Order: sequence, then C-alpha cells, then structure tokens
Amino acid sequence: MSKPRIAVTMGDPAGIGPELCLRLLHEPAVRMLCEPMIYGSAALLEAVARECGPALEPGAPVVDCAGDEAAAVAPGVPTAAGGRVACACIRAALQAVLEGRADALVTAPISKAALRLAGVAFPGHTEMLAHLTGARRYAMMFAAEGLVVSLATIHVPYARVPDTLSTAGILDVIELTAEALRRLGTASPRLAVCGLNPHAGEGGLFGREEQEIILPAVRAARERGFSVSGPLPPDTAFLPEARRRADAIVAMYHDQGLIPFKMLAFDRGVNVTLGLPIVRTSPDHGTAFDIARQGSASPGSMREAVRWAVRLAAGSRKS
Amino acid sequence: MSKPRIAVTMGDPAGIGPELCLRLLHEPAVRMLCEPMIYGSAALLEAVARECGPALEPGAPVVDCAGDEAAAVAPGVPTAAGGRVACACIRAALQAVLEGRADALVTAPISKAALRLAGVAFPGHTEMLAHLTGARRYAMMFAAEGLVVSLATIHVPYARVPDTLSTAGILDVIELTAEALRRLGTASPRLAVCGLNPHAGEGGLFGREEQEIILPAVRAARERGFSVSGPLPPDTAFLPEARRRADAIVAMYHDQGLIPFKMLAFDRGVNVTLGLPIVRTSPDHGTAFDIARQGSASPGSMREAVRWAVRLAAGSRKS
Repeated sequence: MSKPRIAVTMGDPAGIGPELCLRLLHEPAVRMLCEPMIYGSAALLEAVARECGPALEPGAPVVDCAGDEAAAVAPGVPTAAGGRVACACIRAALQAVLEGRADALVTAPISKAALRLAGVAFPGHTEMLAHLTGARRYAMMFAAEGLVVSLATIHVPYARVPDTLSTAGILDVIELTAEALRRLGTASPRLAVCGLNPHAGEGGLFGREEQEIILPAVRAARERGFSVSGPLPPDTAFLPEARRRADAIVAMYHDQGLIPFKMLAFDRGVNVTLGLPIVRTSPDHGTAFDIARQGSASPGSMREAVRWAVRLAAGSRKS
Repeated sequence: MSKPRIAVTMGDPAGIGPELCLRLLHEPAVRMLCEPMIYGSAALLEAVARECGPALEPGAPVVDCAGDEAAAVAPGVPTAAGGRVACACIRAALQAVLEGRADALVTAPISKAALRLAGVAFPGHTEMLAHLTGARRYAMMFAAEGLVVSLATIHVPYARVPDTLSTAGILDVIELTAEALRRLGTASPRLAVCGLNPHAGEGGLFGREEQEIILPAVRAARERGFSVSGPLPPDTAFLPEARRRADAIVAMYHDQGLIPFKMLAFDRGVNVTLGLPIVRTSPDHGTAFDIARQGSASPGSMREAVRWAVRLAAGSRKS
C-alpha cells in the first residue's frame, strides 16, 4: 500500500502556520508515515524559511494556491489579506481531498479576526468545512493517545448551552464519535456521556437536563446497539478509573470537555472534525501571532494532527 | 504552645465516618499534630471497632453526644435516626469550638437523604454551619498541597449559575479566599479568577458575563489591594503554568472548579468552609454507604482534613 497523501494547509500567513509547515517537511517521522503536501504560498514559505528556518528544499511538495498577496503579509497581525490567503488554501486543499488527490486534510491555525476582516462569516474551520461539504451533522472531537473527548456543544455562551443541547444532537455526537473510534481500530467502542449539572443533577435536585435531554439520548443510542454509560457526574467522569472504562467521553459543553482534555493532553492534543465526507484534523492551538516567525513555535501538536489524520484515513480506506 | 485540640464529628452513623474516626485515633501523625476529640457515640464506636476495627482504647477522647439511638443504626442506609445523630454531633462539636474548648472543627461525611428524613432542611454542613453561626457570607474552598480552588457558586443547577453569580458575591469569595491563604502563611496571596464562558467570552463573542459581572469584581478587589488576575479562559486556567502564577483559583461554578481539583488532588483534597467564625474542614468524599463497616475505607482525606484544620487554626491564633 502506498503512503497516504496528507493535504496540509498553511493557515493564516501572519501566524505560526507557515513555519510549522516547513518544520513538518523536515520531520523524518512525518515523511515516514505519509506524503505531506503543503497548500500555501511558495513565496511566503521561502521568506519565512529565510527569516527563521528551516529551509524550503528545492522540489518541496508545495501547492501554490494563495496568489501573490501572501508574501506581503506581515507577521503578528490579523489582516483581510491574511484571511483571504488562509481561505484560499483551505478551499484548494479541501478540493484535493474531495477529488481523491489527497487522503486527508490537516489544517494549520487560522484567525477568526482575519476571517472577519476578509468578509468570511464562519467562526472557524469546523463550520466552514461543514458548509463547503454540505455536512448535515458534524461535531468536534479531541484526541490524544488514550483519551478521546467529543463535544455536544462547541462555541456556545455558557448560558445558551441548556437550550442548545438536544436529545437528537447528543445522539448524533455519540454516533459520530463511535464511528471515529471504529476507524481508529476499536471494534466495539464504549462511550461515557457526561451530565450537565453538579452531581449529574442528583436525581433532579440540581437540574433536570439529565432526565429530560441526556438520558433519552443515552437510551436511544443503546437501542441502536451502542455501548454507552451515563449521564455521569462531571467532576469524576475524567478520573483515571472512569477513563479506563470508556474509549471516549462525550462532554456537554466546551469547558467541561476542554478543561480536563488540556490538563491531560496539553501540547499533544488534536482536534478532529466528525461528520465530514473527508478526514480532517488540526492542532490544538491557535495562530500564536505573538511568537510568529521567531522560530520558537513547537510543531508537536501539528505532527500529532498528521499522525491522527493518517490513522483515520487508513480506517476510512478499510471501512 | 500546646497542641491544638480538634473536634471531629463522627458523621452519619451508617456511613464510613465512625470507622474513619477510629482510624484517626490510631494515626501517630494525627496524634503528633493535635489532640483529636471525637464527637459521636461511644457505644456505636465500640460496636464498629468490634465489627471492623481498629480498637477503641479505654480512655479514648470520645465526647458522647448522640444519645442511645446511634448504636441501633444499621450501616449502609440513610435513616431519620442517622440524620438526627449526625446533627447532634455537629451541634455539640460546634458548641465546643465556639466556646473555646476546641480550636477547629473537622466533620466526617453526613447524608443529605438522612438529614431530609430527620426533617433537617439544610443540604449539607456548609449551609447548616453558616446558619448556626449566623455567618453573613461564606464560601466553599478546596485545598490540597500546592492547589487551592474556591467556588463562586456551589450546588446550583447549571442553568441557574449565570443568574446566581454577582459581582458582590465573587468579591466576597475573593476576599474570603485571600484571608484563608494569609492564615495559611501566604502574606501576599495572588488569586486567579476564571471566566464563565468558553475562552472567557472572547471579547463578548461567546457571552458577556465576564465584562458585566466578573471583571467588575476583579477590579473592585484590586482597588481593595488584592492581587487578582482574570477573568481567565477556563480551559487553560488550571494548566501548570497558570497554577504557578496563582496561590488560589476562584471558579465560577461547581464543575469548573471540581473537575480540575479532583483530577489533580483525588483522595488528598480537603473541603474548607470560609466565612465562619471558626475553622472548619472536612474530607472530600461522602458517606460511602456501600462500603461502610467493611474496614476498607481510606482515612487519607480525613487525615488531610485534620492537617489543614491544624494549619488554619494556627493561622487564626496568630491573626
């Protein structure tokens, strides 16, 4: 079997994405696993290589798709040009994966502010990719070795979470998560679903979302043959004993999942978009404008994103 | 200076409290630190000692305050009698501390269900002690070596947290926490205050409680001379680097504080009630009815509760 081809976007040209792409191309571990293709600006990558290294080798696998304006983007500040360049890279790389010219998509960080300046209405990759591929249901999953957490709601203000949660939505996330775990090689995945309230409501004493919204989703998933426990008291759902009993944990809201995930897997966590017709992963950090082009950005999470993309792509080929 | 005298309540007679009290009396580390006084039922403690050990030595420091009904309480089930006994122990021990016959109060776990059966309206120790001592403002703090977390709201359903949070309430918790840290020997405590929303609201994009409720409390605390940072994005507020920059973290709701606290300090965490006219601590676990009188309950958290009570009482003497 040939090595999978991974389309990697350069991300916002003012952030750390370009230098991380250069580093990826120099990582023997990455080249052993896959054939990375950088979707970005050759001129900008060359400039960044001169500024903070490492070198862009002649013949490096770069697909130039950002036009001339990329090279003019200064580091450290979100701009409309940066937003346009980032979008162009995503569109080109996505097209390559959809047409079978690549097996998976890995995206370097983009800037919400730059997107807004460029007149792009999406708050991030997840929503943009869902729109571009027409995905009806999608979810955000975070993965690290031995720890998988998916979110029933994502970038929702705290107060709006109870109204945003729905039995159908939680059931979707359970199904999408189980499907991803199967692709990753777990034939019969066990999922744990968190409650929303302290002590998972303690029988209705501290809230009723468990009985009214979450438990019906857990029951419906069981009826469809999934192995699901919960709703669990959130403050013990991430302890070692609970984690040993589940292959993935479904959190009800952003910080319920990300406080423990970042504590357990900082700098090695990967973001996976579930529900797209393609495999897509990304690192668990942002554009880091403050340290762009200083040569100090760590490629750890980006390398992990490539590794998980390769694993998920291999699982997709089989399934 | 004589050793501090610590009043320890037996907790619900059907739970693991009685056996933990017996174990405490046998711990050399505890006897070296303080003079523990068990407020409970001598007859029940003798029965538990016979059932699962260790022995209750003749002349052991037990204050018999639970009447005859304690000895008849069977293990493992919440009952009205159990609730009454637990309350009697708390009242007697509290009185001893208020009258200066003991220096601090450590409470073994009680059962909310047993209290309800006994016709006691309080959901737990914190609220009962606040009522009995007339405390105007109080808060729950969790402590372990190198980690202190206090809560701006406690047993509130998820959906009611935004309306329960107030600038004045958060300011109270900041002040009470700083006061406790000073007692514990940190002359100029640094506090970090969490936001409520994902990314602490990201400038209002994901909620406005940060600007409208939390930031005003942080500013008011600074004006009063406290060293306070925040509101911080919750999902990174508990990472090692952030913890190094703060002596305590103020969480906005139960699981925001307790998911990370339990992950970092399981089985060695201690609950401290702030704002009472006395020092009160308790272990970080419940009655554990399911393992009562099997001799398997770990006294680790109870021993820690005694250690923190001794430290806080020493700080109170000085202040």
